Amino acid sequence: MTTTTVKAYGALDATSPLVALTIERREVGPHDVLIDIDYAGICHSDIHTIRGDWGPITYPQVVGHEIVGHVAAVGSAVTRHRVGDLVGVGCQSNSCGECAQCQQGHDQYCLNGNTQTYNSIDPADGTITQGGYSQAVVTNEDYVLAIPAGLDPAKTAPLLCAGITTYSPLRHWNVGPGTRVGVVGMGGLGHMGVKFAAALGADVTVLSRGTAKRDDALDFGAHRYVDTTDREAMRELRGGLDLIINTVSAGIDIRAYLALLDVDGTLVVVGAPAEPFSVPAFSLIPARRSLAGSTTGSITEIQEMLDFCAENGIHPETELVSADQINDAWERVLSADVRYRFVIDTKTL
Amino acid sequence: MTTTTVKAYGALDATSPLVALTIERREVGPHDVLIDIDYAGICHSDIHTIRGDWGPITYPQVVGHEIVGHVAAVGSAVTRHRVGDLVGVGCQSNSCGECAQCQQGHDQYCLNGNTQTYNSIDPADGTITQGGYSQAVVTNEDYVLAIPAGLDPAKTAPLLCAGITTYSPLRHWNVGPGTRVGVVGMGGLGHMGVKFAAALGADVTVLSRGTAKRDDALDFGAHRYVDTTDREAMRELRGGLDLIINTVSAGIDIRAYLALLDVDGTLVVVGAPAEPFSVPAFSLIPARRSLAGSTTGSITEIQEMLDFCAENGIHPETELVSADQINDAWERVLSADVRYRFVIDTKTL
Repeated sequence: MTTTTVKAYGALDATSPLVALTIERREVGPHDVLIDIDYAGICHSDIHTIRGDWGPITYPQVVGHEIVGHVAAVGSAVTRHRVGDLVGVGCQSNSCGECAQCQQGHDQYCLNGNTQTYNSIDPADGTITQGGYSQAVVTNEDYVLAIPAGLDPAKTAPLLCAGITTYSPLRHWNVGPGTRVGVVGMGGLGHMGVKFAAALGADVTVLSRGTAKRDDALDFGAHRYVDTTDREAMRELRGGLDLIINTVSAGIDIRAYLALLDVDGTLVVVGAPAEPFSVPAFSLIPARRSLAGSTTGSITEIQEMLDFCAENGIHPETELVSADQINDAWERVLSADVRYRFVIDTKTL
Repeated sequence: MTTTTVKAYGALDATSPLVALTIERREVGPHDVLIDIDYAGICHSDIHTIRGDWGPITYPQVVGHEIVGHVAAVGSAVTRHRVGDLVGVGCQSNSCGECAQCQQGHDQYCLNGNTQTYNSIDPADGTITQGGYSQAVVTNEDYVLAIPAGLDPAKTAPLLCAGITTYSPLRHWNVGPGTRVGVVGMGGLGHMGVKFAAALGADVTVLSRGTAKRDDALDFGAHRYVDTTDREAMRELRGGLDLIINTVSAGIDIRAYLALLDVDGTLVVVGAPAEPFSVPAFSLIPARRSLAGSTTGSITEIQEMLDFCAENGIHPETELVSADQINDAWERVLSADVRYRFVIDTKTL
């Protein structure tokens, strides 16, 4: 076995700042691609995982599941990618391929639990997967995305989690011209939801606290902006939306948002607050409303989204940071002080 | 105005037993039908309404929204029904006819609030509508259902609420051969849900406390019965259902039932507990599950259901009671001591 030692930035425990460290990448197997990483997005999930918010983990752990880089080597059987290609890796790096969901191409809902890009057991060698805050990664070719020409590599990484997590439900619930879409929260996920919904032809309403993001919302394509602390504006919107994407991972008054749905409307949560939602039956029954959840998207859907972005000139709004700014960036994510996604320049590792 | 005075059985306040009384029925207008009531089903909603569980009401109030009878007179412009026809009236007795929902034939979701058969303001004369625990009722012809030949009139009344409330979501969520349907609770609504789901060709699982109703469930067409207190059986069923109809109006551990849904599964609540459901985001997100609500059904759907029952030989399981047994029957509804729906023989009023 010839593993590769690469520089990375990771956590030694749940609470200390991240530090520079090295990790081993597995030998490039017949179906593997070695990727020299150029950029890695910072996702709130990275912080939740390291902090142990979603359960205890094994340290050291390197996170990062929004990865963009160039193919540096390919295994003997690889047909999908060539050395030099601009590629990406998102949240999932493998799945069973055999369950009913995988067979339908819904690997994000793999019934045997897909392999996450970090903090999963790698089926290839039994180690814990390590993420994108690093110089290179080895990934099965089927889980490597082709970044189409026309996308700016420095701004593309956030599409691989923040992007697909909002794109997938918009597509699954058939958003198009005439659909009245509400996006709750305008952070990393929310701002992409606004751009996608607008590009799909929907009538888009942004629901966010205060008015600081109003101008940005309209710039991103929203048709209206509602300050959620404005009771009168919230009342006027009742029954006026077909689909709401809730990107807020703090607790919210879900009843107030369900009331904004028309008959047969759906509120999809993609952010996961620690406390359960409190859902009165009468928020659902009299208008046949649904409260749904959605995770990221399938590999097929991610590729579709990347192509859609290239065709429609859609990019995330990003702020590029160097390795020594990662800890500071995490603090700023926690205080929602980012417009709208940090991307690490991994050449600075 | 020539109103008709009819005998009824109703409430003078929220807590006292129902008593014999008389009520006025409005003059038969050009589009109205006068129905001599033969049978009226007893629904748990009747009790909730009278008790003020869903808000204060005006007394005296006569309830009952599962009505079967014969047409005794028709207005000058009536074309849909003739004197002597066997007909029914369900939960709604009118709707605006103009909103987006009514225009699509979904009068049960009328955006202006449809007129309920009892405890609503009657648009015809401004009085409070009075229900079916009475000798006769006057109803707009468009809200009068034709009872097809082949249905036993004495057993048909419960279809008009308990029946349609389970039939409508089964149809809306496209239940058919191959669909794995769970029915939670096997009372008035639940037992109809089992019969309908089985007749639609679904694979039906009944989820109920204890084992007392196991044999009935299998008789009604269920393919399996799970005692919800049996943890091992509940664990084995995880991920094994596509659609769950929750007919229980007491609080339930909604998380345990959501866990039974496969990817893209939906849990539909048709019973409304007083306390909100406590829904963890992670009960929905990792499998794109939905929690939905559904009310009764449209007039068109009720007619379709009645015809479906006649074609498939489906009847509710009923126990016929006389007027002087109504208060006793209500107590038995509250203690779930009924298999599975009481029907009042209104000739005994």
